[in-house]
Amino acid sequence: MKIGIVGGTGDIGEGMALRLSPLFDIIVGSREPEKAQVTCTMGRELLRKRGKECSLNGVDNQAAIDGADIVILAIPFKHLVSTLETLHGFEDKIVVSPVNPMEKQDHFVFVPPVEGSAALLIKRMLPKEARICSAFNTIAANKWKALDEEIAFAVPVCSDDDEAKQEVMTIVNRIPRLKAYNAGPLHVSCMVESLTPLLLNIARYNKMRDVGIQFI
Amino acid sequence: MKIGIVGGTGDIGEGMALRLSPLFDIIVGSREPEKAQVTCTMGRELLRKRGKECSLNGVDNQAAIDGADIVILAIPFKHLVSTLETLHGFEDKIVVSPVNPMEKQDHFVFVPPVEGSAALLIKRMLPKEARICSAFNTIAANKWKALDEEIAFAVPVCSDDDEAKQEVMTIVNRIPRLKAYNAGPLHVSCMVESLTPLLLNIARYNKMRDVGIQFI
Repeated sequence: MKIGIVGGTGDIGEGMALRLSPLFDIIVGSREPEKAQVTCTMGRELLRKRGKECSLNGVDNQAAIDGADIVILAIPFKHLVSTLETLHGFEDKIVVSPVNPMEKQDHFVFVPPVEGSAALLIKRMLPKEARICSAFNTIAANKWKALDEEIAFAVPVCSDDDEAKQEVMTIVNRIPRLKAYNAGPLHVSCMVESLTPLLLNIARYNKMRDVGIQFI
Repeated sequence: MKIGIVGGTGDIGEGMALRLSPLFDIIVGSREPEKAQVTCTMGRELLRKRGKECSLNGVDNQAAIDGADIVILAIPFKHLVSTLETLHGFEDKIVVSPVNPMEKQDHFVFVPPVEGSAALLIKRMLPKEARICSAFNTIAANKWKALDEEIAFAVPVCSDDDEAKQEVMTIVNRIPRLKAYNAGPLHVSCMVESLTPLLLNIARYNKMRDVGIQFI
């Protein structure tokens, strides 16, 4: 199973790459492939110190898509449209969006695009053969990177493609203590995406850090 | 502390009344005061069987407002506007909204009013001296009513009135195993209200019941 991470040197993408690379073949994409290679070298070193083998390969974003079975779009919402405009080859790939359209005012606010969510915007932009899922929306970059901690969070997954959703849920459940939940079709991804600004506000107003959720 | 529950014989309101009445003086409001009295008689009996004293008083919705320090609007969203149009006397009261604007299609969808949330619609309709908070949005009626179970859920609370918010959080934290979180100003109540349709979908698609959240 090859997972390509578009934006794999960003805050979230790098953390995902580190945590997923002992479990899957990870292709780290970046606008600058040299940067992706630095992330991979650093990642291998961090994981070797922990006695873990990993599979990390740094390339440009397009190569991360071309070489992968599953593509994770680890892109801040504000760069989503401009990044997707430069990329192609999403046909028949499972495309995972952890993207949350939000703005920081005095507090964080969910500000969806006209499509209603980042996931639906991605659906509009990509070819209809792309198998879009939203997942991992609420996991903070620091949690991905805290390799010595397990992350005991719920991960809601939305998709209109049941088989793709099941594959993504299987990936989520391979990561120790993450638990995937079927959250319905892509249409309701807005309700998942708006969790992140809520959690950031909860952290801020209650003096907590990197808050996640569990369903009970 | 007198808490009036508008809609106190509905599914959610009745459960709240039962669970809160050993802790606070509860005034159960209904369009039909006889129905409120039946709820109170039944509630006293249920609680007496469990060896608990309680304070329950059944009246009409207007009297529940007039007699209370804190008013909980336990009204389904679809009846919110028509109910509020018949009521008055909210000035200087703390008004708690657990209301979630949502619709059931094949799945549940968050469908906010033009104001952006039920809380902001209530703010527009009530006099400016009403001290509006949202709270208890995500707790299922069955959980309120399951008096032999503690409910170990997170309760996000939004308000623009810090003192009112603190009072509501104190009430939440008096209920065994509920934990109040400051979720920010009323403006972001939409992100709390949209949790409920998300949780209903999670329950439906993952064969769970009465799902709640915890922040960790």
